[in-house]
Amino acid sequence: MEQLADYGIRTVFDGSMQQAEDAVTEALKAVGFGVLTRIDVAETLKKKIDLDRRPYVILGACNPRYAAHAIENEIEIGLLLPCNVIVYEDEQGRTIVSAIEPLRMFELVGRDDLRGVAEEVKGLLQKAIDAIGSKG
Amino acid sequence: MEQLADYGIRTVFDGSMQQAEDAVTEALKAVGFGVLTRIDVAETLKKKIDLDRRPYVILGACNPRYAAHAIENEIEIGLLLPCNVIVYEDEQGRTIVSAIEPLRMFELVGRDDLRGVAEEVKGLLQKAIDAIGSKG
Repeated sequence: MEQLADYGIRTVFDGSMQQAEDAVTEALKAVGFGVLTRIDVAETLKKKIDLDRRPYVILGACNPRYAAHAIENEIEIGLLLPCNVIVYEDEQGRTIVSAIEPLRMFELVGRDDLRGVAEEVKGLLQKAIDAIGSKG
Repeated sequence: MEQLADYGIRTVFDGSMQQAEDAVTEALKAVGFGVLTRIDVAETLKKKIDLDRRPYVILGACNPRYAAHAIENEIEIGLLLPCNVIVYEDEQGRTIVSAIEPLRMFELVGRDDLRGVAEEVKGLLQKAIDAIGSKG
């Protein structure tokens, strides 16, 4: 069985990889997050080291106001940005969408004065995941 | 004073932002990491919310063999990938380059069997930062 991380907020998506990517991109947009980066992991691994693996995409999502506030107060927090959202096919062939759990990431920062921001971001990412999920 | 994170491996770079980006991209390549993504944070914030801030760029670096091994063993570790390297101008106008500290990131994963991978990745990122830095 594949290990599931407690640093992710995930859902099963009832549809294809591409549909999941489109749906989560829209759901993120609805809560103020733009998708700034996209890595097709399966394609990259095939190209770089000729490895075949199931579909796996990493999207980098960012809400500019939260990001600006965070960087202003913690200059190197960009090391932990943008907020990643992964879309992948699991062992059973299901399409999974998972977003980073900002409160876990926040443990690394350890700034009590920024905890509120992490909680707000968590609420927004949770809302985006809930909006597309068929189950939690 | 800007807060400096203990989740970064940083150095002062003796040159411009662009020179730092070029230098760290080369140094990462020399240790097997390709730069897959680039976010110009200052440009993005200007465009999205009309905010002016000092230069700040987030690069996403990835070593395909380590990434493949990590994902194979911990399916959602893509939430923490690629390894970020930030290049920014600090309050004193210096160019700073900082890479994520993989062992701190690894705390979130908590898989003892993957600690060796995190240590190897740390060694490689440290080597890249050392190669371009004027001081630690």
